[in-house]
Amino acid sequence: MASPESDGETRFIALMRALAVDPAARALADDAAVIPFGHETLVITHDMMVEGVHWLRGQDEADIAWKLIATNMSDLAAKGAEPVGVLLGYALGPDDARFALGLGEALAAFGVPLLGGDTVSAPTGARSHGLTALGRATSDPVPARSGAKAGDVVWITGPVGGAMLGFEALRDGTAGADTTAFRRPMARLREGRALAPIVGAMMDVSDGLLIDAQRMALASGVTLAITTARVPFPESLPLARRRDAMTWGDDYELLFTLPGDQTPPCLAHAIGHVEEFRGDSILLDGAVPQGRLGYRHG
Amino acid sequence: MASPESDGETRFIALMRALAVDPAARALADDAAVIPFGHETLVITHDMMVEGVHWLRGQDEADIAWKLIATNMSDLAAKGAEPVGVLLGYALGPDDARFALGLGEALAAFGVPLLGGDTVSAPTGARSHGLTALGRATSDPVPARSGAKAGDVVWITGPVGGAMLGFEALRDGTAGADTTAFRRPMARLREGRALAPIVGAMMDVSDGLLIDAQRMALASGVTLAITTARVPFPESLPLARRRDAMTWGDDYELLFTLPGDQTPPCLAHAIGHVEEFRGDSILLDGAVPQGRLGYRHG
Repeated sequence: MASPESDGETRFIALMRALAVDPAARALADDAAVIPFGHETLVITHDMMVEGVHWLRGQDEADIAWKLIATNMSDLAAKGAEPVGVLLGYALGPDDARFALGLGEALAAFGVPLLGGDTVSAPTGARSHGLTALGRATSDPVPARSGAKAGDVVWITGPVGGAMLGFEALRDGTAGADTTAFRRPMARLREGRALAPIVGAMMDVSDGLLIDAQRMALASGVTLAITTARVPFPESLPLARRRDAMTWGDDYELLFTLPGDQTPPCLAHAIGHVEEFRGDSILLDGAVPQGRLGYRHG
Repeated sequence: MASPESDGETRFIALMRALAVDPAARALADDAAVIPFGHETLVITHDMMVEGVHWLRGQDEADIAWKLIATNMSDLAAKGAEPVGVLLGYALGPDDARFALGLGEALAAFGVPLLGGDTVSAPTGARSHGLTALGRATSDPVPARSGAKAGDVVWITGPVGGAMLGFEALRDGTAGADTTAFRRPMARLREGRALAPIVGAMMDVSDGLLIDAQRMALASGVTLAITTARVPFPESLPLARRRDAMTWGDDYELLFTLPGDQTPPCLAHAIGHVEEFRGDSILLDGAVPQGRLGYRHG
């Protein structure tokens, strides 16, 4: 989930990479671990959410639960995996019954069972929850961020910026605004399964289109060239905020590449193409984008 | 891990049980979820540790990492599972490099790879970490807390109370005291695998011998009768503190039952027997134990 890395986080992740030498870990550079298990392949991911970072203090606990499930389902979607179950690490809070309600709604919506977890009382300060999602791969190989090839077309399954608009409306208490995209994101599980057998690279857009596209480019050793005019945005987004929308994240659409002559088996938008790497991993409208590529939430 | 349930926790777990209807969840009443996957069986568990609850503020970060791995390995041991990998949910702290060092030591000691996870910055207050451990079952059926039968003998793989003594020495800064049992618990993975095919019931003792024995009794619908004089304790434990040692936890020995005529295939101590349920789930020296059966840490 969201928020770019601090220096401390970058250093810690480097330490973890040195430990995560098993090929299933995919060098911690992918949306999920991919583990051969029996005659099948297990896909597993773990995300944390922290109060004040990933959700607004005072936000409806039911929405927090929904989002915890949805973001992890999105990681499974990026692998074309079918959900098998989730484990919840929960810090007790002001309205545990609302959290349980939202959790139940999300489990039903995504068709995934709760299998276990742990509950703790945090004595002070910000609460945090963790969720582990388990899935079953439906394709071989399982899609990765690497795999984009020069000549491929870059696609996205839906608009970016809706979560940002929803977050701002919620933060500002805007009357009558639709905040669903921020509060109750969906995960593209069906699309992910349809795409998994044919994509070059695939990932979900959680931290911002530009930063995630850059990650795909770096993992693939190519340049991703994106054209703003082709990127889908919500109708209500002002033109001047298109760059914000491309760096905000939390929309959980799937970003993927296909050979130039191939049409996706689901609704998607061609937003750019893959070029051989010539010094820059990402180009926006033909130029290297300046400033932040991913946005800090909260 | 440790600390008895608060009212809020009890209520929340009841809400979660209502959601966790999948048989693999084992009604959230076991040490781990057990999931048929391919032609094998997956065992998966998730534990959280909170600063000030599960570890002392200022404690060596390397030991915190060790314990996070060890406690989850112990859950796998209770299922006779072979570790497959772990995912870490980590809140950045004052000494991430020490944490990484201890994590690496624990991964090597337990022979388990780091497969993935998430890193966050907690803005304020107590930090918490989560760990998910994945294992492969080595027996069919996979041992459960239920399965103790009247006439069985109750066994434990080693002493209880060592972690309590270590915790107190660490808290009090006792010079020359050995605090290893609290800081660097082991998990009985080898013993768990040897026992899994033959036990009636099995679990790890994480929250206190008496409360965990009671859980086994409740899950099995029987009475567990334990004799204090047969329970192994550390040599340095004063006699007057045997009851404390039986209610403290964090020792991560395996508690299991075998038919009366069977000897365990590993070092273990017979500490009682299983009776038909006649109104009380646990008897200590022939009487219903009064007061707390599990101890709050920290």
